[in-house]
Amino acid sequence: MKLVPTLGVALATCAALLPGHARADEGMWLFSNPPRAQLKAKYNFDVTDAWLEHLMKASVRFNSGGSGSFVSADGLVITNHHVGLDALQKFSTPARNYVVDGFYAQTSADEIKCVDLELNVLQSIEDVTARVNAAVLPGTSDNDAMLARRKITAEIEKESLDKTGLRSDVVTLYQGGAYHLYRYKRYTDIRLVFAPEQQAAFYGGDPDNFEYPRYDLDICLFRVYENGRPVKPDSFLKWSAAGARDGDLVFVSGHPGRTSRQLTAPELEYLRDNQIPYIQQLLKRREVLLIAWSARSEENARRAKDDLFGYQNSRKVYDGELAALQDPVFLGAKLDAETAFKRQLADRPEGKDALAAYDRIANAQLTVAGIAQRARFLENGAGFDSAAATIARELLRAGDERPKPNGERLKEYSDARRPSFEQELFSDKPIYPDYEIVTLGDSLTFLVEQLGYHDPLVQKILAGKSPRERAAELINGTHVRDVAFRHQLYDGGAAAVAAAHDPLIEVERLIDPEARALRKIVETQNEIKQQAQAVIGKARFAIFGTSVYPDATFTLRLSYGQVKGYEENGRQVPALTTIAGLYERSAEHHNKEPFDLPPRWIAKKSALDLSTPFNFVSTDDIIGGNSGSPVVNAAGEFVGIIFDGDIQSLSGEFGYDDRQARAVSVHSGGIIEALRKVYDVPALAGELVTGKR
Amino acid sequence: MKLVPTLGVALATCAALLPGHARADEGMWLFSNPPRAQLKAKYNFDVTDAWLEHLMKASVRFNSGGSGSFVSADGLVITNHHVGLDALQKFSTPARNYVVDGFYAQTSADEIKCVDLELNVLQSIEDVTARVNAAVLPGTSDNDAMLARRKITAEIEKESLDKTGLRSDVVTLYQGGAYHLYRYKRYTDIRLVFAPEQQAAFYGGDPDNFEYPRYDLDICLFRVYENGRPVKPDSFLKWSAAGARDGDLVFVSGHPGRTSRQLTAPELEYLRDNQIPYIQQLLKRREVLLIAWSARSEENARRAKDDLFGYQNSRKVYDGELAALQDPVFLGAKLDAETAFKRQLADRPEGKDALAAYDRIANAQLTVAGIAQRARFLENGAGFDSAAATIARELLRAGDERPKPNGERLKEYSDARRPSFEQELFSDKPIYPDYEIVTLGDSLTFLVEQLGYHDPLVQKILAGKSPRERAAELINGTHVRDVAFRHQLYDGGAAAVAAAHDPLIEVERLIDPEARALRKIVETQNEIKQQAQAVIGKARFAIFGTSVYPDATFTLRLSYGQVKGYEENGRQVPALTTIAGLYERSAEHHNKEPFDLPPRWIAKKSALDLSTPFNFVSTDDIIGGNSGSPVVNAAGEFVGIIFDGDIQSLSGEFGYDDRQARAVSVHSGGIIEALRKVYDVPALAGELVTGKR
Repeated sequence: MKLVPTLGVALATCAALLPGHARADEGMWLFSNPPRAQLKAKYNFDVTDAWLEHLMKASVRFNSGGSGSFVSADGLVITNHHVGLDALQKFSTPARNYVVDGFYAQTSADEIKCVDLELNVLQSIEDVTARVNAAVLPGTSDNDAMLARRKITAEIEKESLDKTGLRSDVVTLYQGGAYHLYRYKRYTDIRLVFAPEQQAAFYGGDPDNFEYPRYDLDICLFRVYENGRPVKPDSFLKWSAAGARDGDLVFVSGHPGRTSRQLTAPELEYLRDNQIPYIQQLLKRREVLLIAWSARSEENARRAKDDLFGYQNSRKVYDGELAALQDPVFLGAKLDAETAFKRQLADRPEGKDALAAYDRIANAQLTVAGIAQRARFLENGAGFDSAAATIARELLRAGDERPKPNGERLKEYSDARRPSFEQELFSDKPIYPDYEIVTLGDSLTFLVEQLGYHDPLVQKILAGKSPRERAAELINGTHVRDVAFRHQLYDGGAAAVAAAHDPLIEVERLIDPEARALRKIVETQNEIKQQAQAVIGKARFAIFGTSVYPDATFTLRLSYGQVKGYEENGRQVPALTTIAGLYERSAEHHNKEPFDLPPRWIAKKSALDLSTPFNFVSTDDIIGGNSGSPVVNAAGEFVGIIFDGDIQSLSGEFGYDDRQARAVSVHSGGIIEALRKVYDVPALAGELVTGKR
Repeated sequence: MKLVPTLGVALATCAALLPGHARADEGMWLFSNPPRAQLKAKYNFDVTDAWLEHLMKASVRFNSGGSGSFVSADGLVITNHHVGLDALQKFSTPARNYVVDGFYAQTSADEIKCVDLELNVLQSIEDVTARVNAAVLPGTSDNDAMLARRKITAEIEKESLDKTGLRSDVVTLYQGGAYHLYRYKRYTDIRLVFAPEQQAAFYGGDPDNFEYPRYDLDICLFRVYENGRPVKPDSFLKWSAAGARDGDLVFVSGHPGRTSRQLTAPELEYLRDNQIPYIQQLLKRREVLLIAWSARSEENARRAKDDLFGYQNSRKVYDGELAALQDPVFLGAKLDAETAFKRQLADRPEGKDALAAYDRIANAQLTVAGIAQRARFLENGAGFDSAAATIARELLRAGDERPKPNGERLKEYSDARRPSFEQELFSDKPIYPDYEIVTLGDSLTFLVEQLGYHDPLVQKILAGKSPRERAAELINGTHVRDVAFRHQLYDGGAAAVAAAHDPLIEVERLIDPEARALRKIVETQNEIKQQAQAVIGKARFAIFGTSVYPDATFTLRLSYGQVKGYEENGRQVPALTTIAGLYERSAEHHNKEPFDLPPRWIAKKSALDLSTPFNFVSTDDIIGGNSGSPVVNAAGEFVGIIFDGDIQSLSGEFGYDDRQARAVSVHSGGIIEALRKVYDVPALAGELVTGKR
């Protein structure tokens, strides 16, 4: 699988877990509030500040949606192949396909720079709750409160950026119960060092995705540069030769993207009955579209591969989530816990406010449900599946937003986010018109279907053409694929954008007023829900104290657990696999795609110690965004790297379950064995094992 | 592609074409009313009765949904590989896979009998309109009229069956403007003689489906037996050595399943906005499900192949249809024609009734729209995608329906349909529990999503389990896979069915009252629409005379046209391809799946005359159900066999278009060349060319 954050509208931002649900090894803990007591009690392990800080500064976030870690003094970063895939694909061509063939830079000069990759390393966490709350005067309307918070947030971020030069993000935690300022070192010169063939990284392909046992070498190595030279990171993880062993206590330090563990009943039902069915429909239609298009030529397949990969992966995630929400046992337990909590609230003086907050959430959810479909198609891009259309909108909105005061802009146009935004906007990653016509044509077809052929805005969008003809006209007519054109419009502002009369930008202009209005409604209702959740969170805090962690927010978290197998259909699934298992699986499937071995693996079989551990599972609480997270032992050594969760772990969006749900990792021992004996890259293996070049 | 009739609720039964839309070569004509004048005028061709009867009696209908023809005096029938596929698959096993490897019976003893194939050969057409209409007294309510018509229809069919021993179906034509009694010889001992590898038959797979140029040997040969011996058909088609040539006048005699060319604006909009989007969603979700499941093992792929094939093919059909209905030009022309016709009606005395009929159609359509989703899931099987569930319902309903008078039963339980029904019910075709759990689990998930988790009936269906758990419980618990059990319940009637307490039957019993009620509403509204269409049809007839053909009804029709290329994106696409093109296409794709050549074709390349014509296109008006239809020249000789339409022909559901829409056929010359030189079956080739063994 790909534990990169999944598609779709963010479901909820954060929430503390109901202690009534807590199980062993549960939680994605803040580095500023690690589960010291639990670790001491269950594992007799003491979390020291030094241990924590070392792990924090060795952990890396990928802006493309994943995690990683420094593993050498010379700036080497390890992550998953599927986290690096987007970068690999962007400098592959039909002639040299690094995705298929893999890549290794023999010398520093061979290390190639990624087009648009950004890495962040967390430096500090500061609680700014008081300052944010102080900016909202008592009695302020919800909408004004949101604007006030946006303003103070932008101020805090800008002030911190100016002062420290560090990327500074104010993160909302505990449903708005807390606001923390996260400061990151930001790296943009990221160079590719090593990637195996995708067939080794994603062995078993979509059929084995989210399954276990597994045999994947899902790794990719980059080197971080600054001022043209490899960076010397503040800390990096020491490599464990032995790696993870059955029963070991292991930690995961990574960036889980999103969980929704404190959602209320109406929110869960909205997901079950409205949001997830919509996303599933979108994903399945795109999957079918890209499979059909890919089949027509090898070049089509290369172009669509990354998107298809993402759709298939997300589709499984949402299948798993919907299964959990349609499961009377899983859902029933959640709803029972809510009922029990509400009963506790009813007995307390502060409970009245919290119970009223539940009602506000229900109302807000109703309001969102009423406009969700138009918001998806007009604001969230479901109707305009095209990289060029995204750029067209960004140019249009940049022209309108940039003249505004920083605090009043749509958040992606704030000063603090500007460097990342511009890097993405001016990236020269390839955009293929034939592919864009196919995806835009299909998404316009879906838009007509869902918003209605007779809708006046739909008719304006189509301009008398069929969806496919219109898509071809817009994609062939736009100039936004030209980076120089983008610069010209971005620099020239709204006047230049208007003067260009670019057909795709003009379509974005058509939908912009309603899209913005819909977004405002959704944001306002989300703010209402967030406020209400804050009230509930406060009440919950009053009852349950600090033994809680907030929902995932794509910020650094610490999970813990054990290397541990599980029972499935009466059969015991062992915790670890070996390299021998890879060859057995290939033989079972007559070495047929996607169970075929890369030629190198066939040739080098006899050189390998087949008993070397390859993949393993553990009970750590992870989710999308944890892809590439280091797994470390009690000594803080690198023993493996997260790359997947099993199918049972997909309920993790809504709750932790340790019966069968498991995190799946590549074993540090298997990595070294493969680098040395299959890929014949002793220098790289040496750098990992010794921690320096 | 597969021109087998597509999935889904029948859209409309029949309709005469608006002459305002007529183009050259348009029409699927009744054998009792061939386009004599048009053929004389445009091609100076005289249709004689002898020519017609010969072609009619050589034409064959497959109950599995396709067409074919007798091509030897010894009962040899040729059809498409994809029409025979279901049969091929049913006697394939993991050990001997006729789908992959092909099949040839060296001797009569080697010809293997199909499990559940039925062939029908039309013997006569009798106009019974007066008798049907006489059974409906003036002033009868619509519902009583429907019952009266059902009763008289059943009577006519039974009387005819008793008198002639022939399968007798009363067919509704011209929106109820006419009722014709079609009598068929019915054959059930059908034995497989020859099939190429599917890779030759469906060369280019899904990517090339509905595309042209093509290089497919989409044929399959059966022999019809009666009383244990090959039948001597009344007539068979003489094989043309030269085959079809560019510019030739060619006829197609086959069984187009359904067209909807006279639908009114509200009906077209219902299709565009409601029905087709639903079917598309269903097809795409099933396609994704089966692709993912198939990828896990070769055996899975074999089991799912036929269903997947059908879903992919139908998905393209509906993509094409929706594109036509979302095209302001195509749809606009249709709506303009309706408006113009209504204006003509307004000027005539009999026009008032017809205009009122338009309003009744609009109202009926609204009623159907209101219950369509529940009807799809409860009555039409969308929630119970399982062969076992279908059998469970048939056993339940047979118990309830069979004691009723023939005319009052649901139509599939009528005496006339009983032989076909029982053959299907007691077929021992394999049903795989693991596959059934997957498909039933997914369809129950879809049912919960669409009808709502809290719906009381949904909760009863789930019985406290998640959809997947419930599917496993039902499939593992049912006994309907056992043919003896089916016999026992069928013979024992309702009491035996109740006593069995079969879990799957009991679920069918749960939904049966609502399912029947929904079906009744839909049938009543369809009857209202049909009545109204009859009124409109009569008015149209008064204006346009007999120069019209009814919509397709899976009954025998005659189309005509020319072998003719077309222009696409400024490039001329020639009418014929050659065998050389097959080898070129394979080389372009590095012989990779699905563009790989079967080994036999690689080995025998040098033996072949590469300039032999292989596939060709013509302007004949065809649609799903025409698969396997013979293409004959003016002399009535077999010059090719229909197997596909190009992508532009998909608008044919709603209207004929000869700009780019084309029927695609295998050429008679290419067939003989392949049989002789690739498959080395001179006896079979000889039988085709000489017309006897």
